[in-house]
Amino acid sequence: MRYSKIIGKTLKQPPKDEEGKSAQLLVQAGYIRKEIAGAYIMLPLGLRVLKNIEQIIREEMNAIGGQEMQLTALQNPETWKKTGRFSDEVVDNWFKTELKTGTVLPLALTHEEPLTQLISKMVSSYKDLPLYPYQFQTKFRNELRARGGLLRVREFLMKDLYSFSKTQEEHDMFYEKAKKAYEKIWERLGIGDITYYTFASGESFSKFSHEFQTITEAGEDTIYVDKNKKIAVNKEVYQNEIIKELGLKNEDLTEETAIEVGNIFPLGTKFSKALNLNYIDQNGQQQVVIMGSYGIGLGRLMATLVEVFNDETGIIWPESAAPYKAHLISLNTDNKNILDKAEKLYAALKENNIQVLYDDREDTTAGEKFADADLIGIPYRIVISEKTGEKIELKKRNQKETKILDEDELLSMFSN
Amino acid sequence: MRYSKIIGKTLKQPPKDEEGKSAQLLVQAGYIRKEIAGAYIMLPLGLRVLKNIEQIIREEMNAIGGQEMQLTALQNPETWKKTGRFSDEVVDNWFKTELKTGTVLPLALTHEEPLTQLISKMVSSYKDLPLYPYQFQTKFRNELRARGGLLRVREFLMKDLYSFSKTQEEHDMFYEKAKKAYEKIWERLGIGDITYYTFASGESFSKFSHEFQTITEAGEDTIYVDKNKKIAVNKEVYQNEIIKELGLKNEDLTEETAIEVGNIFPLGTKFSKALNLNYIDQNGQQQVVIMGSYGIGLGRLMATLVEVFNDETGIIWPESAAPYKAHLISLNTDNKNILDKAEKLYAALKENNIQVLYDDREDTTAGEKFADADLIGIPYRIVISEKTGEKIELKKRNQKETKILDEDELLSMFSN
Repeated sequence: MRYSKIIGKTLKQPPKDEEGKSAQLLVQAGYIRKEIAGAYIMLPLGLRVLKNIEQIIREEMNAIGGQEMQLTALQNPETWKKTGRFSDEVVDNWFKTELKTGTVLPLALTHEEPLTQLISKMVSSYKDLPLYPYQFQTKFRNELRARGGLLRVREFLMKDLYSFSKTQEEHDMFYEKAKKAYEKIWERLGIGDITYYTFASGESFSKFSHEFQTITEAGEDTIYVDKNKKIAVNKEVYQNEIIKELGLKNEDLTEETAIEVGNIFPLGTKFSKALNLNYIDQNGQQQVVIMGSYGIGLGRLMATLVEVFNDETGIIWPESAAPYKAHLISLNTDNKNILDKAEKLYAALKENNIQVLYDDREDTTAGEKFADADLIGIPYRIVISEKTGEKIELKKRNQKETKILDEDELLSMFSN
Repeated sequence: MRYSKIIGKTLKQPPKDEEGKSAQLLVQAGYIRKEIAGAYIMLPLGLRVLKNIEQIIREEMNAIGGQEMQLTALQNPETWKKTGRFSDEVVDNWFKTELKTGTVLPLALTHEEPLTQLISKMVSSYKDLPLYPYQFQTKFRNELRARGGLLRVREFLMKDLYSFSKTQEEHDMFYEKAKKAYEKIWERLGIGDITYYTFASGESFSKFSHEFQTITEAGEDTIYVDKNKKIAVNKEVYQNEIIKELGLKNEDLTEETAIEVGNIFPLGTKFSKALNLNYIDQNGQQQVVIMGSYGIGLGRLMATLVEVFNDETGIIWPESAAPYKAHLISLNTDNKNILDKAEKLYAALKENNIQVLYDDREDTTAGEKFADADLIGIPYRIVISEKTGEKIELKKRNQKETKILDEDELLSMFSN
């Protein structure tokens, strides 16, 4: 992609109407723009990051037997009435709308109800189970206050997987598998070492749910971390008897602020009972299906990466999430030799399937191009200039040293 | 994918609450399910078809300089007030919702307003133009009556591209390019020969807009087609003077019913004037940006393929859209040799990156498996049974003859 043509260039100043490091950097670097408080446009660079994150999650969900599908944003109110969650007094962050007939429709806040209803039409025998549907779908939540750019929003893309199991044992086995899949996702995104499996409230469903909390100052949650055992406890359930029950000791725990990047939730039979999701077991007995839910908010995860990976000059994307692998900068664009060389390298990189953003701007100083490259945060910066002559300068975003290479060396480095 | 595990199996009977061939086939074959009238769940098979169509469109939009991004569903009402389209009296199919503060938010009916507003913040000089942003994003339209399954719905995925050009000439050149890109999309989906570039009303924007109309009995539009010139005229502008203006003759035209699978629309300066989207030209003069919009509804396109490609036993997908390339059926699953052979072939197909749906059900008759394969409509049916012995039977969905092959022949056929 030629940077001269891109929709969403860097801004000279951080935005004044955004709080928090990730919101400021993502807006200033040209990844996102605010439509209303809590709803953000994904500019081309931002959408590329989001799609990279989505693909990593998809691969890990498929690897544990997930089946991708897509439910709707407009939902059937009757299904929600059956579980008692349609009322604004029970759920306080609904967005609702209306058909011409006056029927009030809920906008997808989550998808337990419609999915359980759907699956109940498909399951009758033990042979039909277990099932692990998942989707990437927009959620709408009428938060009183949106906050921190992509961290707390009113509209966001979520990956939600649901498990439908025959027995508690089958549920527990899958729950453990999902936990491992989540850990792989954090590792692939470079936050494995600072993301903790965290015991949190199970609400009305079970004693605990489990969050994955990434330690960063920008977090709005407080957790107590045992760094040796690599588990944590959310402040909301931080009580002596629970610490003891989990085999932890107060003196081993440190207080940290963290962002919840994912959560997994044993739902028990709450939804399956309310919506008649039953099956006939091998002995001919009717049983209730046991459910779990497994969520990741993609925008929040993207913002968390920025909160964790940045320096005073901009974002430092992990390679797995970066919008491009290489950021090619041509200086001295008024020198035809240099310009030709940059154009040729751009073509060669594309031909070798190396994702490259090419800063081909003619009316921009070297200083501005370098500053923009640091702000945007692509892993490898490549410079072609009169100074580099026949050679090419390469610098990693997170290192200070530059290397001088020729084109063949550069291409072979990227293909490894 | 093992069919025994799939979410969304075939139904024994066509659904009673769906009208139209495509709705009946897509529901019965396990591609979609109705959530409410006009909003459909994409089951795993359906989502695969939708993603194939999406990828074809994406490739053709990228090829003409399109930049993919993603706007929001919740929109800023202030932007719509500036163009005068926020009122329910001006636009009669709004869905709206409300923030806790009481502010009424529109749900994306289309994206001209927010996108023009966004681009106006990014464009100041002629050097910033032209721009061709596009997205795949959900549209919400409060239709009085939903109809025909995916043909007329209240919530649907749309590809919408917008052009922002400096001059009428630049606009016209891109409009022609977009037209050709659309024609490539129809060709790649196998409906090129029955899809006509159709003159339709330009509404308040210009004399004509242009639709792409696919001839099928299920269509709700009437068009007059000149098959030699490969153009058509929508009934809404079918008048003698217009026929003459277009260089057509009444006697060359045949009346047909058709489905509008895409439309392209010269928007002129309506939105750019209302939202102050201007630029300074090379002579230092301020000019207004000229816009166009280019839409394709993906679900409707999917339904159109089914309307066009089916027979009395089910769907016949074009290969480019099919959820899988091959449908592997194992009969005589109680014979361990046969079962092992089928499992091995399934593994070999997957290893060779051939997308395969494997009907591994044990309690299902040969007749049921064949009927389901015809209903689902995957291009190649592969059978392993006692009858085929060491060999494999291959049949194309749209042909009657079967071929007998060995595994190597089969794999090499698919890899070509």
